[in-house]
Amino acid sequence: MRKVCVVLSARPSYSRIKSALEAINNHKDLELQLVLTASSLLDKYGEVIKNVQADNYKVSAEVFTLIEGETLLTSAKTTGLGIIEIANVFNQLQPDIVVTIADRYETLATAVAASYMNIPLVHVQGGEITGSIDEKVRNAVTRLSDIHLVATKKAAERLERMGEDPDTIFMTSCPSIDIASSVERKEELEYDIVSKYGGVGGDLDLSLGYLVVLQHPVTTEWEDAQEQVTKTLRAIKDLNYNAIWLWPNSDAGSDGISKGIRIFREFEQADRIRYFTHFPPEDFIRILHHSRGIAGNSSVGIRECSYLGVPTINIGSRQKGRERGKNVIDVGYDYDEIKKAVIKQWENGHYNSDELYGSGGAGEKIAAILADIELSIQKSLSY
Amino acid sequence: MRKVCVVLSARPSYSRIKSALEAINNHKDLELQLVLTASSLLDKYGEVIKNVQADNYKVSAEVFTLIEGETLLTSAKTTGLGIIEIANVFNQLQPDIVVTIADRYETLATAVAASYMNIPLVHVQGGEITGSIDEKVRNAVTRLSDIHLVATKKAAERLERMGEDPDTIFMTSCPSIDIASSVERKEELEYDIVSKYGGVGGDLDLSLGYLVVLQHPVTTEWEDAQEQVTKTLRAIKDLNYNAIWLWPNSDAGSDGISKGIRIFREFEQADRIRYFTHFPPEDFIRILHHSRGIAGNSSVGIRECSYLGVPTINIGSRQKGRERGKNVIDVGYDYDEIKKAVIKQWENGHYNSDELYGSGGAGEKIAAILADIELSIQKSLSY
Amino acid sequence: MRKVCVVLSARPSYSRIKSALEAINNHKDLELQLVLTASSLLDKYGEVIKNVQADNYKVSAEVFTLIEGETLLTSAKTTGLGIIEIANVFNQLQPDIVVTIADRYETLATAVAASYMNIPLVHVQGGEITGSIDEKVRNAVTRLSDIHLVATKKAAERLERMGEDPDTIFMTSCPSIDIASSVERKEELEYDIVSKYGGVGGDLDLSLGYLVVLQHPVTTEWEDAQEQVTKTLRAIKDLNYNAIWLWPNSDAGSDGISKGIRIFREFEQADRIRYFTHFPPEDFIRILHHSRGIAGNSSVGIRECSYLGVPTINIGSRQKGRERGKNVIDVGYDYDEIKKAVIKQWENGHYNSDELYGSGGAGEKIAAILADIELSIQKSLSY
Amino acid sequence: MRKVCVVLSARPSYSRIKSALEAINNHKDLELQLVLTASSLLDKYGEVIKNVQADNYKVSAEVFTLIEGETLLTSAKTTGLGIIEIANVFNQLQPDIVVTIADRYETLATAVAASYMNIPLVHVQGGEITGSIDEKVRNAVTRLSDIHLVATKKAAERLERMGEDPDTIFMTSCPSIDIASSVERKEELEYDIVSKYGGVGGDLDLSLGYLVVLQHPVTTEWEDAQEQVTKTLRAIKDLNYNAIWLWPNSDAGSDGISKGIRIFREFEQADRIRYFTHFPPEDFIRILHHSRGIAGNSSVGIRECSYLGVPTINIGSRQKGRERGKNVIDVGYDYDEIKKAVIKQWENGHYNSDELYGSGGAGEKIAAILADIELSIQKSLSY
Repeated sequence: MRKVCVVLSARPSYSRIKSALEAINNHKDLELQLVLTASSLLDKYGEVIKNVQADNYKVSAEVFTLIEGETLLTSAKTTGLGIIEIANVFNQLQPDIVVTIADRYETLATAVAASYMNIPLVHVQGGEITGSIDEKVRNAVTRLSDIHLVATKKAAERLERMGEDPDTIFMTSCPSIDIASSVERKEELEYDIVSKYGGVGGDLDLSLGYLVVLQHPVTTEWEDAQEQVTKTLRAIKDLNYNAIWLWPNSDAGSDGISKGIRIFREFEQADRIRYFTHFPPEDFIRILHHSRGIAGNSSVGIRECSYLGVPTINIGSRQKGRERGKNVIDVGYDYDEIKKAVIKQWENGHYNSDELYGSGGAGEKIAAILADIELSIQKSLSY
Repeated sequence: MRKVCVVLSARPSYSRIKSALEAINNHKDLELQLVLTASSLLDKYGEVIKNVQADNYKVSAEVFTLIEGETLLTSAKTTGLGIIEIANVFNQLQPDIVVTIADRYETLATAVAASYMNIPLVHVQGGEITGSIDEKVRNAVTRLSDIHLVATKKAAERLERMGEDPDTIFMTSCPSIDIASSVERKEELEYDIVSKYGGVGGDLDLSLGYLVVLQHPVTTEWEDAQEQVTKTLRAIKDLNYNAIWLWPNSDAGSDGISKGIRIFREFEQADRIRYFTHFPPEDFIRILHHSRGIAGNSSVGIRECSYLGVPTINIGSRQKGRERGKNVIDVGYDYDEIKKAVIKQWENGHYNSDELYGSGGAGEKIAAILADIELSIQKSLSY
Repeated sequence: MRKVCVVLSARPSYSRIKSALEAINNHKDLELQLVLTASSLLDKYGEVIKNVQADNYKVSAEVFTLIEGETLLTSAKTTGLGIIEIANVFNQLQPDIVVTIADRYETLATAVAASYMNIPLVHVQGGEITGSIDEKVRNAVTRLSDIHLVATKKAAERLERMGEDPDTIFMTSCPSIDIASSVERKEELEYDIVSKYGGVGGDLDLSLGYLVVLQHPVTTEWEDAQEQVTKTLRAIKDLNYNAIWLWPNSDAGSDGISKGIRIFREFEQADRIRYFTHFPPEDFIRILHHSRGIAGNSSVGIRECSYLGVPTINIGSRQKGRERGKNVIDVGYDYDEIKKAVIKQWENGHYNSDELYGSGGAGEKIAAILADIELSIQKSLSY
Repeated sequence: MRKVCVVLSARPSYSRIKSALEAINNHKDLELQLVLTASSLLDKYGEVIKNVQADNYKVSAEVFTLIEGETLLTSAKTTGLGIIEIANVFNQLQPDIVVTIADRYETLATAVAASYMNIPLVHVQGGEITGSIDEKVRNAVTRLSDIHLVATKKAAERLERMGEDPDTIFMTSCPSIDIASSVERKEELEYDIVSKYGGVGGDLDLSLGYLVVLQHPVTTEWEDAQEQVTKTLRAIKDLNYNAIWLWPNSDAGSDGISKGIRIFREFEQADRIRYFTHFPPEDFIRILHHSRGIAGNSSVGIRECSYLGVPTINIGSRQKGRERGKNVIDVGYDYDEIKKAVIKQWENGHYNSDELYGSGGAGEKIAAILADIELSIQKSLSY
């Protein structure tokens, strides 16, 4: 039995790997070791761990690493502490393979610990392009990784051009689409979001339609985070649409976003914006499916929503360069641009489904590769 | 004045950057901030800090990060602690540019701290190819870096193929050659090595000629380190040549190398092998110049010795793939192969100088680039 | 000039040392080095650093150490990280004396770093008695300290009985009383609290009188924190008095307190409770002075309020054993008890001032001792 | 079954707790969790872990925490890292009781982690008196501990005077004496020390009798360590007695001791001094028993040797204040004093056995107490 250790560090990682977790768990030659770290453990970021446990996954280790401050300095230090702590966990669990996901800053801690300890490292979602520090992190993780499981053809091509060994690159599609494709998309949302998830802020009348909003700080522009989010808040408020607003991830600048939201919430009457900390993956898909669109800068707008056909208003530089479908309108941090694009998408209705990031089955493919591939930690560029 | 923070982590880093330190120090638009960390502070690795201070450089911060154990686990943890500590130093010194050198595992700590803190990062000696974890580390550091100062044309080409922006890649040659080219190479060594540097072990009769030996563990083969070095020890001993043997750097497996040496030293009479912890850069060049050859797996055999024409017996996989001149014979971890190659090189005498890694002036070029280049932390692949 | 390094870790430390900071700063033979760490840097705990800067103190170092989680595990880890970080700061600042204050868990990090580095350590507010982990922390800090500046005669006697050298024990009174005694206590509060400090929650009509509430988790009972605070919330709400409620410090269990408050705030209509994160020391004294009483378990109710004569309703075990004046009524975590005691104190009006913890001048005495005392790190019990 | 977690941090801890480990292991109501940390894992300090494993104890966790440097700064940082790491281990093992031993600086890491995590803490060997930082550490650990198992009546009395609850203090005698009392002391040493343990340095002719030497740095005088040890080396060398010399523990200043030994070894012909890194507890007792005396500043000279009647030359301030028997002569760091005392003790022969620190059975008593005592983490001084 190969022991496959998957490290989750934040809310979005779970959606992006859940179908693979299930497939690994069900595979006769694989044993899943699930490690939760950083914000995935914390109440204020939605306690992903509760979803994970509710979904009946055994958590092999919980690793607290987040140093408070939400500055660049604390991001660096959280990563350092993460390496120290995660290295211990690997030493104890002795996995045959470590899996790290995507490009958040904490993923580098997993990648360094595994590669320095001579454990074959698998990277899911390499080869993409974005802005922010994510761009550097993703490519650094690629260089430390022995096996690459990518979401799109272009991503695979890019890794090959970079000199990664073609035999180690697999186009599996994106596991986040597995959830989108497996959730039954009914005519109406079968539960009341507010009764089920609470939230704080304005009252919603969801029968009038609603927008989902999710805006993270861009770490390379982190000092502008508060100002950036305030523009979005104002635009949405003035449109007077119902909005389901998700708190940001934990990053340098999150503090600015949160402050922006808190100040706005106290001083401006925004009766139709309600704030939530987290939805489990399937419910989030359902909420997106029934929405009139998603605004902000989450990759969900690019990835899951291209498949779901949900209109996306993508704000700012965070997703710059990422492959996208027709469902996306890009705008700057500008009140008027945002407002105009939101109206347009709200009126547009759903787009056709685009299978750019896959159409299901990625999790199964990933498990099969992890079970079959020959493992090695010796690596050199193919040129 | 641009504040340029150079972080040294180990004995070899100093030789590889010293001429640049001097040029930065002398440049009217640059202010040097020198940070010493990891083994560069420790007595048992030669206390590089003493050379640095003897050379009149002001040390802006001393950062103890080395967690004892010399295992893969402690390498990972040392790197994590390094990030935490170095991030503090950057926060305090507020440099405009951070410079990290080559590919030892600790350099990644510098790279993560700087890039996560939005400080423009300069990497010296990227784009090369080797074995060991160094290969992964070097390329990961490349991905976190904003500016690349490389030693050879091929290195520059490789970075461009990887998608690094050509405007950020500069072929400066290798600053280690600056020292080799500036030291006057006299007919005879003007001092007695043993009186000046002590060392422990056998007595040397240097008038008979001598070999330099320097063999590090290969971290991806770290459990074999003791066995690997013992083969070299036995081959050198049986040849009965005088040998100036340098203790290894601090890595996973160094413990194995040290144990191999200690056991050999106690139980086998090797009257002509003497062990030293460290020579300052210039004296090391002189010692190499007057030697009959260098054996082991240090990059000095590839880099400085190609310029000096000193015969090199390169053992094992550590330098695999690195560009080399005619002065190098490659052998496996094999008693007979090593012995045969050492005899051949000992008899061969010096080779012609090869300017593959430069011929001086790299330090000046580096300082000029650091003073003039436009700084940015926004980065995306050129494809 | 003796360099005196004072380390603040949390909101209350500032009030308890401010007058000494001023006296040190003004003393011709002393140089103040002020270090801020842990929650004193964080927005969500009131950003003590802003008050400090507004009061024109130069901050020598800011040290982020708080690992998120607010569990016992993260308290321990925060302390470990604190030692690592604060040791660096001492290494850089090279103080002649380090001052640590009171008994919060993070103070032990300061005490370990200083004592292990052979820096004479001064402890302010040793020799008192309380419940919670504070009791262990305070006495452990005493044992690591070379000089003891205590607030009461009984505290001095206790230290002597413990075997501390009488020549190192000084009864200076409590510097927190210096602020209480220096603030002019006018007939009416000269500003509107809500306009000046915002806060969130119900509207207040302060002309009807108000209560101050401040309830921290007891770390040795941390799992009950949410339940404990909910009883207080319910009692205060049902009384329908105006309440100025301060968020708790950062401790294991703070999360429970915060959750208790958030849930209560969303689901129960408490129109007269308003939540604040922090008041600067002087304004906090003014707010206390004009209040009808303070409820909760802060030492402010015991210390400053005994001098101010403000009625205190002290809830639970946190202050168990601490010397107190007549202004205090002790109650358990019990709805009825709390309600009854609040009513009684509200009706009682102010008590006579009690000088148990001093009557001003402690800061001056502390500075004089720090300037004059012979320093030593050699210590042994007096029996 | 109560889970009892014992944390060993260094070579001497094992001798001081071994008989208790055995008794815990054999007790029907106790489950032993053994954690090794700091220098107990390291080859250069004798790899205590190998003895432990040879003695068939299962090691529940290995925790690397030693930050290289052997300065005061790195001692502090090692302690900080120790808290972070050991807290993780406690979180994973969930012990009912934690046991920490004696007064080395790293023991405070165990004590902080346990007490901050609300785990009842047992301290073995509190209440004694010495010099160095050990004095502060021991008493700080006492204050964090809930149960005290002490070696002498005076130690018990001291703890009571300090205000520790008499119901939590137990005089068990010192478990190190259990080994001394259980090892059969034959007429002759039944093996050849050099063949069995190697060592480096001069040849020994043990038939002429021999001295054991063990001198640690005094951390509060750490900068004098090299000079201090050189005086002992010179005195022993000039006497030309056979000497079995043990390398020091890992402390601030060990580097000075090691340097002193290395320099002495290279430059002075000391044909009868041989250096060893470690002996297992039982063999160490045998070696002591057959020796003519022990010189240095180890507590072994005070504790085990009072029972064995082995003459002790105790040098300097490290054991200042510790209760001692008639077998001890105290001297300063002075060549003549040391020489004179060594001659006197060498000629004196063995003393009568003194049961000051016990006569066996401590381990059994400790296990019985751990099994029976009511556990609590609430603590307050008895006055």
